[in-house]
Amino acid sequence: MNIQNYMQQIGNKAREASFAMMRVDTAAKNRALLAVRDQLIQQKAAIFAANQQDMQNGRDKQLSEALLDRLELNDSRFNDMCEGLEQIASLADPIGVITDLAYRPSGIQVGKMRVPLGVVGIIYESRPNVTIDAAALCIKSGNATILRGGSEAFFSNQAIAACLIAGLREVGLPDTAVQVLETTDRSAVDELISHPEFVDVIVPRGGRGLIERISNNARVPVIKHLDGNCHTYIDDTADEQKAIAVTLNAKTHRYGTCNTTETLLVAKSRGDLLVKLAQQLGEKGVELRGCDASRALVSSMKPASENDWHEEFLAPILAVKLVSGLDEAIRHINTYSSGHTEAIITENYTHARRFLAEVDSSSVMVNASTRFADGFEYGLGAEIGISTDKFHARGPVGLEGLTSQKWIVLGDGTIRQ
Amino acid sequence: MNIQNYMQQIGNKAREASFAMMRVDTAAKNRALLAVRDQLIQQKAAIFAANQQDMQNGRDKQLSEALLDRLELNDSRFNDMCEGLEQIASLADPIGVITDLAYRPSGIQVGKMRVPLGVVGIIYESRPNVTIDAAALCIKSGNATILRGGSEAFFSNQAIAACLIAGLREVGLPDTAVQVLETTDRSAVDELISHPEFVDVIVPRGGRGLIERISNNARVPVIKHLDGNCHTYIDDTADEQKAIAVTLNAKTHRYGTCNTTETLLVAKSRGDLLVKLAQQLGEKGVELRGCDASRALVSSMKPASENDWHEEFLAPILAVKLVSGLDEAIRHINTYSSGHTEAIITENYTHARRFLAEVDSSSVMVNASTRFADGFEYGLGAEIGISTDKFHARGPVGLEGLTSQKWIVLGDGTIRQ
Repeated sequence: MNIQNYMQQIGNKAREASFAMMRVDTAAKNRALLAVRDQLIQQKAAIFAANQQDMQNGRDKQLSEALLDRLELNDSRFNDMCEGLEQIASLADPIGVITDLAYRPSGIQVGKMRVPLGVVGIIYESRPNVTIDAAALCIKSGNATILRGGSEAFFSNQAIAACLIAGLREVGLPDTAVQVLETTDRSAVDELISHPEFVDVIVPRGGRGLIERISNNARVPVIKHLDGNCHTYIDDTADEQKAIAVTLNAKTHRYGTCNTTETLLVAKSRGDLLVKLAQQLGEKGVELRGCDASRALVSSMKPASENDWHEEFLAPILAVKLVSGLDEAIRHINTYSSGHTEAIITENYTHARRFLAEVDSSSVMVNASTRFADGFEYGLGAEIGISTDKFHARGPVGLEGLTSQKWIVLGDGTIRQ
Repeated sequence: MNIQNYMQQIGNKAREASFAMMRVDTAAKNRALLAVRDQLIQQKAAIFAANQQDMQNGRDKQLSEALLDRLELNDSRFNDMCEGLEQIASLADPIGVITDLAYRPSGIQVGKMRVPLGVVGIIYESRPNVTIDAAALCIKSGNATILRGGSEAFFSNQAIAACLIAGLREVGLPDTAVQVLETTDRSAVDELISHPEFVDVIVPRGGRGLIERISNNARVPVIKHLDGNCHTYIDDTADEQKAIAVTLNAKTHRYGTCNTTETLLVAKSRGDLLVKLAQQLGEKGVELRGCDASRALVSSMKPASENDWHEEFLAPILAVKLVSGLDEAIRHINTYSSGHTEAIITENYTHARRFLAEVDSSSVMVNASTRFADGFEYGLGAEIGISTDKFHARGPVGLEGLTSQKWIVLGDGTIRQ
C-alpha cells in the first residue's frame, strides 16, 4: 500500500474514533488510562527488549550519545510513564464543563461547553515515553490521536503501542483512538500535516528544525514554540536577596530547557547587584556577554553582539544589558523575546503591574524564576507542549489546551423576534 | 510606491500602534469610540456625498441591485453605526481580566490574563458600515486594525476612515490604530494575509468565494466560517406547539442568513408534525425537498438529492429527512453539517443532554430557533463574525474573540527546586 492510502486509512479511522471518544465518560477514560498502565507493567520485559533493539540499531548507526540517552528506557523512566498515567487519570476531566450559562432577554439561556478538538497528530523525536504521555493526554481530553515517533525509537514505540491498544480494548474503547504509525517513511509526516479533514491540530515535539519544517508546511493548526529566549529584569527597587536567588535559579537550575533565562536586564541604578551576580554566575561557570555599560562594571564580561539578544543559548551563557529602567526593559523584551517567559524582580507595585500588562509573552512573572513556566508547576497536571502563539492555547498546554468550546443555548420553544 | 512597500509601511505602523493600544485604559478607549461617533455626526453630509459617488460609480459599472443595496447608506444605517459605537463603548472591557488565580505548592500564584491579539486584518465587501463596526470592536479589544473594504465602497470607506482618524487623534490615541487601506489593488490583500510579522489574525467578511480564497492562501490565522448549513431536529417527544413555532422561525424568519435552518430532521414517529409543518411551510412559499419516507407522507415534496443535504440554500428551500431517532439525527448532522448551528426540539431530558454533548457544531440548541446564533443575541454586544473552527474563537466572535490570554505568575523571590 502506498503512503497516501495508508495515511488516508489511518485518518479515516482516527476521525471515526474521535466521534466515539467525544462521548466517552470520565470513568471510562480513567479506566482506560489505568488499564494501559497495567499493560505496561505486564509487558515490561518486551518493552525493554524492543528498546534494546532500538539502542543497538542506534549504536550501529552511530547516533550521538545525547540521542542515545534520550532513546534509552530505564526503570526510572518506565516508572515515570506509569505514574504519568495515574496522574492524568486523577486530574479533573475538562470535557463537558459548562461556563457562563446565563439568561438573555429573549428567554434563551446561553453558555459555553468544553469539547474535544477531535484528532490530534503528534510528531516527536527519539524519546519513547512521549508516546505514553501524549496518548494519555489525548485519551483524557476525549481526542483521538495519531502518533509519529522518531524512526530510531521504532521498536520501542511499537511495543508501547501494543499496550495502548490492549488497554483501550480491555475497557471497551475503540483501539483506533490511539494509532502509532507503523511506518518510518518521512512522507507520512507530510500527509499527516496536510489533511484538515482528518487531523484537527498538530503538536510537534522536538528540535527547532523539526518544528520549523512542520509549521511552514502544515495545512492544519500547529501548537508550538520555536525558541525559549526568556528574560529576567532586575528593577530599580528589586530586593537584593530575591534578585540573586531568582536570577541564579532562572539561569543555572538547568541550562538546556526552554524556560531558562537567556538574557538578564538590570536597571542602571542597580549596578551593585550586577557586580554581585556576575561573581556568583562566574563561580558557576556561566559566561557573561554584556553591553558596553555592563562591561564597564564587570571587566571580565565578553562583549555582546546584536545576535546575542536574539539567542536561545541552551548553555551556560547569559547575555547582560544595563537598561535605563522599566520602559527600556519592556521595549527590549518585546523586541527580542521569543514570547515564551519573562520575569521582573521588583518591590514596586506600579512597575509589577505594568510589567504584567505590557510584556507580550505567554508567561509573565513577578519575583519568580522563569523556570516555573511548566505545565506541572502551573497545576495543569501534565503538559503536551508550550505554545508561544496567541491563538487558542498559549503557554503550557495541558488537558484544557487540547479542547475547544462550543456554545449551548437552552430555550423552551423560544423563537427570535 | 509599489504595493509591497506600501503594505510594509502600513504593517509596521500597525504593529507599532498595537503596542500602544495594548496599554490604553478602558476610559480612553470608550472616549475614542464616542469621539468617532461625534465625528460621524459632524461629517454626515460628506459621508453621504462620498456614498453617493460610490453608488453612481456602481450604477455606471452595472453592479447588481443586491450589491447596490448593501453599498447604500441611509439614515437608518447611519444611525445604526452611531448606536453601535455607543453600545461597544458601554460593554465591559475584556482586556486585563485575570481568571483562575490560585496558589501552587511551590508558593507561586498562577492565573491567566486576557490580552489583545495585536493586529487584526479585516477584509470585507461592499457594506461601508462594517468599517465602523470592525474598527470599534478592535479599538475596544485593544487591537490595532488594518481594514480592506470592497473597491465599490472606496469613497464611503475613506470618508468613514477620516472620522476614525479624527476621533482617535482627538482623545490622544495613535491614529494608526485603525488604518483603512487607500488602495483598491487586489494584491494588497495578498500582502495582508502573508505577513505574520505584522498581522496576527485575518477576519474575512463576505461571500464564500472571498473566504475560501483567503483561507487557502493565508499565512496567518483566519477567523471564519464558510457555510451555514444548520439543522433543526424534531425528536420523538417534541412538543407540537414548540416544534412548529421554532421550525417556522428557524426557516422563514430570514432566508439569507447563515443561521437559517437548511435541513429539517424529523423522528419517524412524528410524521404527524411533518405533515402539519409541510402545510405551513408551503403556505409561506417554502419548497420542500424530502427523502423517500418524507415524500410518502407529503406527496407534494420534491425528491432530495445527496447534494441537498450539504447545501446552504440561502433561499425558501428546505431539505427534509425522516430519521429513526436521535442517533440517526446526530449522525446525519455530524456528517453533513458545516458545524455552524443545530437545534433539537424535545421534551426528553436525556435526549437533550446527549444532543448538547454529541453534536459537534459551534452552537447547539434545545427548543430554540437556530436564528439565535448571533453575537447580539448571545450577549456579546457586537459581532465581528462567526467561526466554525475549533481553535480559539468558536461561534459568534465578539470582543473576547479578539483577545488571547497569557499566564501570569506572582512570587516573592520564589525559585524552583
